[in-house]
Amino acid sequence: MKTKVQVAIIGAGPAGLLLGHLLRAEGIEALVIERASPDYVLGRIRAGVLERTTTDLLDRLGLSDRMNAEGLPHDGFNLADGERLIRIDIAALTGKQVMVYGQTELTRDLMDAAPGRGLEIVYEAADVALHDIESDRPSVTFQKDGSVHRIEADFICGCDGFHGPSRQAIPASAGQAFEKVYPFGWLGILADVPPCNHELIYANHENGFALASMRSKTRSRYYIQVPLTDQVEDWPDDRLWDELAVRLGPDAAASMTRGPAIEKSIAPLRSFVFEPMRHGRLMLAGDAAHIVPPTGAKGLNLAASDVAYLSEALIRYFQQSDSDGIAAYGPRALARVWKAERFSWQLTTLMHRFPDTDPFARRMQMAELDYIASSTAAQTTIAENYVGLPL
Amino acid sequence: MKTKVQVAIIGAGPAGLLLGHLLRAEGIEALVIERASPDYVLGRIRAGVLERTTTDLLDRLGLSDRMNAEGLPHDGFNLADGERLIRIDIAALTGKQVMVYGQTELTRDLMDAAPGRGLEIVYEAADVALHDIESDRPSVTFQKDGSVHRIEADFICGCDGFHGPSRQAIPASAGQAFEKVYPFGWLGILADVPPCNHELIYANHENGFALASMRSKTRSRYYIQVPLTDQVEDWPDDRLWDELAVRLGPDAAASMTRGPAIEKSIAPLRSFVFEPMRHGRLMLAGDAAHIVPPTGAKGLNLAASDVAYLSEALIRYFQQSDSDGIAAYGPRALARVWKAERFSWQLTTLMHRFPDTDPFARRMQMAELDYIASSTAAQTTIAENYVGLPL
Repeated sequence: MKTKVQVAIIGAGPAGLLLGHLLRAEGIEALVIERASPDYVLGRIRAGVLERTTTDLLDRLGLSDRMNAEGLPHDGFNLADGERLIRIDIAALTGKQVMVYGQTELTRDLMDAAPGRGLEIVYEAADVALHDIESDRPSVTFQKDGSVHRIEADFICGCDGFHGPSRQAIPASAGQAFEKVYPFGWLGILADVPPCNHELIYANHENGFALASMRSKTRSRYYIQVPLTDQVEDWPDDRLWDELAVRLGPDAAASMTRGPAIEKSIAPLRSFVFEPMRHGRLMLAGDAAHIVPPTGAKGLNLAASDVAYLSEALIRYFQQSDSDGIAAYGPRALARVWKAERFSWQLTTLMHRFPDTDPFARRMQMAELDYIASSTAAQTTIAENYVGLPL
Repeated sequence: MKTKVQVAIIGAGPAGLLLGHLLRAEGIEALVIERASPDYVLGRIRAGVLERTTTDLLDRLGLSDRMNAEGLPHDGFNLADGERLIRIDIAALTGKQVMVYGQTELTRDLMDAAPGRGLEIVYEAADVALHDIESDRPSVTFQKDGSVHRIEADFICGCDGFHGPSRQAIPASAGQAFEKVYPFGWLGILADVPPCNHELIYANHENGFALASMRSKTRSRYYIQVPLTDQVEDWPDDRLWDELAVRLGPDAAASMTRGPAIEKSIAPLRSFVFEPMRHGRLMLAGDAAHIVPPTGAKGLNLAASDVAYLSEALIRYFQQSDSDGIAAYGPRALARVWKAERFSWQLTTLMHRFPDTDPFARRMQMAELDYIASSTAAQTTIAENYVGLPL
């Protein structure tokens, strides 16, 4: 294991691995340090819709062969208001597609390609800690195989998610957190059945939100909004399929194939942004700096745009001895982050039933969906955010 | 005074008068019954921005000469976020303009034209009451000059505003009210000074909302958001001008001319919709059926689109003995009403400071303004609502 690198990356999720590959492609020495095991990382079932911005990065790295072979390019998706499907034709409105390809698959591709490209990943690193991030020689320490290791680096990149140590290493007085916690969660089910529709359906039903999604032509991913007090045990498969049939509406229900859950879990919804995204020699990227509610599928894609900006800044620093990109990274990334936060918050607000959704608020949701159904401009605003605003 | 007409119209504001003229133009007998005096009606300082939909109606009636001579056609307006003006170029985005022309002036034009077109208006009618609206021969009674009058009609049109008797005549069990009351009001000042900008400025400032508007090139109308507990006496002219200068920003402040208030008042903000808009032989139009907050200037324009639909339905009934238009009036008008309610609510929500505007919510407002500044599609959604969605 190296003890001195140009860039130490904390976290081997998609943000950290993608950053590592982007740096290695330019010959920069990077080491990825991950708390968990490879199997644990791959076991996390998360996002499944990739923006063009994200697939472009993978194409550029030459790491998109399996994604392009097995992923499902989508030309559109649907909003449902209990009476109809409102199709957002993203291909016609923006000239771009999105790619349905599970985060697990993407992570596996990045993981598998690491050894061949000289990207070293240390898994099962315990007690990861950051040191001297305000100095020119920051370092990371961790325990592995019974001994303490110290990695010195020019820069540390915190790609270690919402609960990781990187953000916590920034003094409280140096940052500000913006947060909204939603009063409900998403109960998700993964099942090896064909999807009920070839495109996603986001449904606003009187009972609450539902989403029909998929990972492949034979693997479906469905969600329903549930109170935070609900437990997975409250939702045996039959009850969940019944409720999905109600919320997605009769057409989707008629073509829905039921099957046993291979994964079922409840996730809370949160909007969160930490500012700044750089402190001294530490830069944050992805969930370490910001969380979006999953409505709109922006989480993984924001991590990808962060590391696109961050890799550019680091490459410029190491290849041209120019630190302006490092200084600009935070503000540049945050401008896009806030817009994606806005889109995710707005789509969440439009499609969910809130405890304070009174009859007027409900009619506002219905009127907005009705307006969207009637306006090309309104459909375009949704489509251009869904495929990803320009970098 | 007639005692039997085809259509009895309650309320001589712009909705009632415009409806009366539209019916008279097709030879239908209409009588307008108004509680107040002509001077009182003209003294109400209200809206000042007319949609193309509204000006088209006036053109069609041949009642637009003074409006076209004295009104100010506007190609755009501005949103301000404390740092910059974001111009919404409605002419370029929609091919339409709006017309700045005070409600008072429009009302005067409709009033002045009434005698020549055989539109009878009874002013100062006290104790207006509706009878037998579920029957084929409804009637209206009122007191005038010491005696009680009864007008029989085929239909009664309630254009008598939020507080008028028409909506109250519908049995509670037959209707549903949807309402949102906003936790602030608008303090407005009218002054005979040139406007600070040739187009309107809607400003979202940390201190709260402000609007720079005008009635003519020499008469300005400004507003600021104030707590509902404030009184007009709390805001001497100097304090109000100072606060406007802060909220509208340095550029607007530099070109703002101060002058004594010729009118100053505080108005609450409300979103309100009553369904249905027809009960038996009574049809509601304008503020009698719905209220929007003034942000976006939709109130008067919604009244105009209501009476456009309503006059079509009545003309069809009397000229073709076809009551399908009457049956369709409510749903048809409400579809447009709800979209305008949505736009007014959303623009109000975007531009005001709410008691629960926490740092995250404030950033959402700033991110939305930033997104609007960067997206032609987002600007188009605002522009197409501002000039009025198609009838």
